[in-house]
Formats: sequence, structure tokens, C-alpha cells
Amino acid sequence: MLEIKEKDTSCRARNALMTLPHGTVQTPAFMPVGTAGTVKAMFHQSLEDMGYELILGNTYHLYLRPGMEVIRNAGSLHKFTTWDRNYLTDSGGFQVFSLSSRRKISEEGVRFSSHIDGSYHTFTPESVVEIQETLRSDIQMVLDVCTAPGISKREAEEALKTTMSWARRAKKRWENRVEGYDGKLFSIVQGNFYKDLRKRSVEEIIELDTPGIAIGGLSVGESKDEFNEFLAYTAELLPEEKPHYVMGIGTPDYILESVEHGIDIFDCVYPTRIARNSTVFTRDGLIALKNQQFQFDDQPIDPTCQCSTCQRYSRSYLRHLFKAGEMLGPMLATEHNLFFLANFMKEIRQSISEGRFLEYKKTFTEAYYGAKI
Amino acid sequence: MLEIKEKDTSCRARNALMTLPHGTVQTPAFMPVGTAGTVKAMFHQSLEDMGYELILGNTYHLYLRPGMEVIRNAGSLHKFTTWDRNYLTDSGGFQVFSLSSRRKISEEGVRFSSHIDGSYHTFTPESVVEIQETLRSDIQMVLDVCTAPGISKREAEEALKTTMSWARRAKKRWENRVEGYDGKLFSIVQGNFYKDLRKRSVEEIIELDTPGIAIGGLSVGESKDEFNEFLAYTAELLPEEKPHYVMGIGTPDYILESVEHGIDIFDCVYPTRIARNSTVFTRDGLIALKNQQFQFDDQPIDPTCQCSTCQRYSRSYLRHLFKAGEMLGPMLATEHNLFFLANFMKEIRQSISEGRFLEYKKTFTEAYYGAKI
Repeated sequence: MLEIKEKDTSCRARNALMTLPHGTVQTPAFMPVGTAGTVKAMFHQSLEDMGYELILGNTYHLYLRPGMEVIRNAGSLHKFTTWDRNYLTDSGGFQVFSLSSRRKISEEGVRFSSHIDGSYHTFTPESVVEIQETLRSDIQMVLDVCTAPGISKREAEEALKTTMSWARRAKKRWENRVEGYDGKLFSIVQGNFYKDLRKRSVEEIIELDTPGIAIGGLSVGESKDEFNEFLAYTAELLPEEKPHYVMGIGTPDYILESVEHGIDIFDCVYPTRIARNSTVFTRDGLIALKNQQFQFDDQPIDPTCQCSTCQRYSRSYLRHLFKAGEMLGPMLATEHNLFFLANFMKEIRQSISEGRFLEYKKTFTEAYYGAKI
Repeated sequence: MLEIKEKDTSCRARNALMTLPHGTVQTPAFMPVGTAGTVKAMFHQSLEDMGYELILGNTYHLYLRPGMEVIRNAGSLHKFTTWDRNYLTDSGGFQVFSLSSRRKISEEGVRFSSHIDGSYHTFTPESVVEIQETLRSDIQMVLDVCTAPGISKREAEEALKTTMSWARRAKKRWENRVEGYDGKLFSIVQGNFYKDLRKRSVEEIIELDTPGIAIGGLSVGESKDEFNEFLAYTAELLPEEKPHYVMGIGTPDYILESVEHGIDIFDCVYPTRIARNSTVFTRDGLIALKNQQFQFDDQPIDPTCQCSTCQRYSRSYLRHLFKAGEMLGPMLATEHNLFFLANFMKEIRQSISEGRFLEYKKTFTEAYYGAKI
């Protein structure tokens, strides 16, 4: 499913085409997060115009609301939401651990209480594959046990054991998927911040031989150095020919770091979440539009940006919208941030194609993190 | 400024072209309300695509936030907000009466406390003209005293006296507007629900000879019969050659009633406000998308509607968006409601042009108010 087109000679960065049921995806690619089947504050048309080929939906949220009956009635998550390109859905595991008020994990699966109405539900490795089959996810993720940094090795090993057992059960269920559905199953490397556990996880996953592999349990509160160390260590162990996914990555520095280590796709709520709070990307770093300093600023967010927000609106007007609590503020800021990231990814792919990714990384980083405007 | 093109022979309905500094407006026209310089949840591009030529801004809100310095810096409300077509701004009088926590009226003007931060400000007939001059409003309204239904005739007469005195002062100030600014001043008929006071108000306004005339103090809580009675009574007294404006009208029945009596323009937050609460227009009447009955409904809001929402999205998905509190819900519903009204106004003008307005009114009303879906 992954056709590697170009490799950067000085690092593991690569350009590839990933073939999925709803079309081909140029990688490295950032996936905007559409938790409940909508990338917050964005028209689908706009995401299409920006060239996004793959977005993320959250299984936990979609399962609880609108619920599987509604999706089944529509035919698929794509038809329900009118997004006719690819969806990656997560397994719901992360949300069960972060959102539900009560949860109980067993060998069978995880029982949890909904954050919406307190009702009880159970996710098993099999049921989660089944849910994603109903969604018709183009990439589906196995249910895993998420752990936080700082747990003991014994706890980490226990969680990994369960994760790997669940991955095998998920694969088995996925092999018996309904005819006509060809979504790809990705397994997830865990092992917390213990290198030998990470290694063991990768080895078992290679043996399991799912179409793609994700690195989980990173960007969960650890230091940046620790992230870099464990990303580099884990990524190097992955088989080159399979798609590599790092979950929860959306800042330029983490994206660049991931691409350098051969990661193909990543997702994060970060660009859309900060936008709703008036924080936007520029080539010179983040700015918070709410700030007093923009009161009379008639420049666009970023004068070099070609997005529809920057083509039309001033910082002064955008600041006003945020100060007044007007919905158009988040709409325009989200539009800008996602356009900015789509363009960033294009530039990354271009630099790989021209064998100068590390140079691009350095130049971008200096401008973005060096001087604040 | 008003060129009457066609008149319906069986009532006072008329099609006209109203020439304003930012282009010609086809009337009868509905004006979406952009309180703080943004029609809530709408991109300006979308309003342009729908053919809106005139929108409303609220002087009270814009004066308090972003404030006149910011508008002056941008050059005009148009430049600040990037809306290059016409703006009508109200006088702020209505908001002073409905929003500010404390206010004190005198012959000089009205002193009030901001609903945002409690700060004190004074509007005089002259300062309100000046503010709207800074906004570069294409139509500006005189400051008036708003009264509620049910007050005594003596109170109504007192308020009218002040309103008329303020109108004369406003006109004087407007005649001394800065060179290069050619926004039109509209005076406002008051007189509460007393016909002789209404008549007196119109007579004084005819003598004052402002470019346009508004009927104020209607749709303020009175019964529909009372509205119809006072609308008909007041509208008939207005000079035919001037633009007629009724403030606060946005439901199909009130619009049809107003057009029948020769009203050219009207505004209301109604279509955009109900949209944000999931209520949308259809030819068969209002529906509330949040309702359970739409859970599995894969039809568009209105199968006959050509708006971008109806071209793409199902009621089932829209219901989900509203249930999940997603911003895309209000965005899509607002888009639909404003498209629906723009199309409604086109049909009204078409029916006038073909001399069958009353027939159109009857047919539309029967479908819209007759059977609920």
C-alpha cells in the first residue's frame, strides 16, 4: 500500500504514495482531526480545496454520538459526513483513558462510562475493529492500552502484554472483515519509555504483519528530548516498506523531527484547537491575535500566506472578532492554520524531493522558533 | 436615490433600485444583521455569492468595540470588515434602551452604561451622525427614543417630541458631513400605538425631508394584528418616492405584509439567530434540526433549495452537529437560512414584476404556515 517515491539521502525522510480505498495520499501528510466527523469550524469543501486527502475521526466519539445505527443508516462515515476522501479512525483507546469518568481494563477489553451521559460500554479488540468496519475507515487502529510517562517497568510490561494480545485478536477479526471493505489495519507500538519494551513491541508487530504501524505513547507529557530519543530509537526499528504513523503530533518542530525519522503520517488537534483560541501560525512563529499589539495592525496574519483568510482579512479585524467572541474568528483562524500546515507539508515534500530536507528543517526552524514578531 | 421600476397593481408592493455609495440595491431587500461587523457564522464571500447588496451594522456595538479609533485607522467599516458593498447602520438608540444597564435620557441626548464593561458614554443626535460618518455608513439612522407598547399617550407624545427634535438636529449635523462622504440619512417615524401621533410624526418627517424614512417602534412585542394595522396605517402616509424601511422584520409573514404595504427594506437577527439554535426555513415551514425525528433523515433541509448546505448535507448529519455542539452546525444552518431568504426576496421581486405579488403571498403563506412537516 506504500510506494516510496523519493528518499532524502542524509536522513530517513521519504516521499511516498499511500493507496487507500478513498484515493491516494501523498506523504508525509498531516491529518486534521475531525473528532465527531467534522474538523471543527471547517467546511468540507475548504479541506478539499486545501488538498487534504486523509483526515482523522475518533471512534470513541462517533460510537457514542451519533452512534453506529446512524452511521450504518448512512452507509459509512464518509457518506454521513460527505467527506469522500480517506478517514483514519483511532481505536478509541486513548479517549477511554483520557475522557471517560470510570473505566476498568481486563484481558477481555475495557469497560467504561461515557463522558456524555455516564452510560456503560465495553470495547474489545474485536468490537473496535467491527465499529471501524461500520465506519468504513480507510485506516483503522487496533485497541491498545495507553500508559503515561513515569510508570514502573513492570506496569509498562503488563500494559504491553495486553496491547500485543489485543493486537493479535484485532488482526484476526480484521481478516474476517466483510466483503467489499478494504480498510487497512495499523498496529501500535507501545512499551512506554523503556527501550527494550519498545524493541520487543516492534518485533512482535513485525511478526503480526499489519499493513501499517503506528508509534503510540509518545507526546504524552514527556520532555522534548525524551520524545526525540524514543522517536528516533523506535522509528529506526520499523520495516521501511510499511507506512509509519506517529500519533498526536502537530507542532512544526515535532513534525519535522518525525519526518526526519521516516514517519509518513501524523495527526493532532493542536492547529485547530489553538486557532479557536486566536493563536495562529506565521513563518516567524506563533502569534495570538487577541493581543493588544494587533489592535491597529492592518496586515494579514502572515503576508507570505496564500490562504483565503490572509488574502482578505487584517489582524486588526481578526483581533476584534476574537475580542467580541464572534464565530468568524475561529472560522478564519482555523482556515489559516490548516492551510499553513498543508503548505508546510508541501514544502517538506518538495525539500525531500530535492534532497535538501535537513536544510529546509534548519531554515524553517530558525525563522519559526528563532525570532518572535 | 430610489428609482421605482415596477409596481404591483393590486397593492402597494414595488420593485426599485436604490442607489447608495457602495452600489445599487435591488428592493424589496432583506438585510442580514452584522452587529459587530460580521454576520454571525458567515464568510463575507458567502454573503456576496448570495447576492446581498446591503447589510446592517449596529452603531452601539461598533462604537463600544472595536471603537472609533480602530475604524478610523482602517478608513471605514467597509475596509475594516472587508465588506465592499453597502452598510446600513442603526443609530444605537434601540440598543441603548435594550442592552445598557443604566441610561438617562435628556433633551441633550442619552447617557448610558456599556453592557461590556460598565463604562459611561453619551449619544447625542449629533454624535451619532458623526459616528456613522466615521463608519462611512451608506445609510445612517437618526437617534430616536424607543418606546414599548402599553405606555400612556402622554408618555408616547413626550418621546415623539424628543425624537422629532433629535431628528432635526441630526439632519443639521448630517448636512455638514465631510466632503467625499455621501451616506444617506433616514429619519424614523415613532408615535407608539397612537394613530394621531404616528400621523404627526410622518408629517414632521415629510417636512424634514431626509433621503429615506423608517418606521420604528413596530415588532416590539405587540400582537400581529396590531402590527399589521399600524404598519398599514403608517406606510400609507409615506411619500411614495422615498425608500421605506421597517426595522426588526425577518419572518416571512411580516416580510410579505411589509412588502404589500410598499416597504423596501427590512432587517432582523431572526434568520441568523434561529439558525444557531438549529431552526431552519423550508418551504413547508420551520424545522428544528435538533429534533429526534431527523436522526436517520438523509434528505437535505429543503429538497427544493439550491444552497451549498442543501446541496451537500443531510438532516441526519446536521442534527448530529447540533447535538454534539459542533460549530459547523450553526455555520451550515446560517448559510441555508440566509440563502433561503435571499431566494425568497428574489421570488417576491419576480412576482411583483409579473403583477402577481398577492397570489405569491397567498401560495407561499399556505405552504409555509399551513402544513407542518
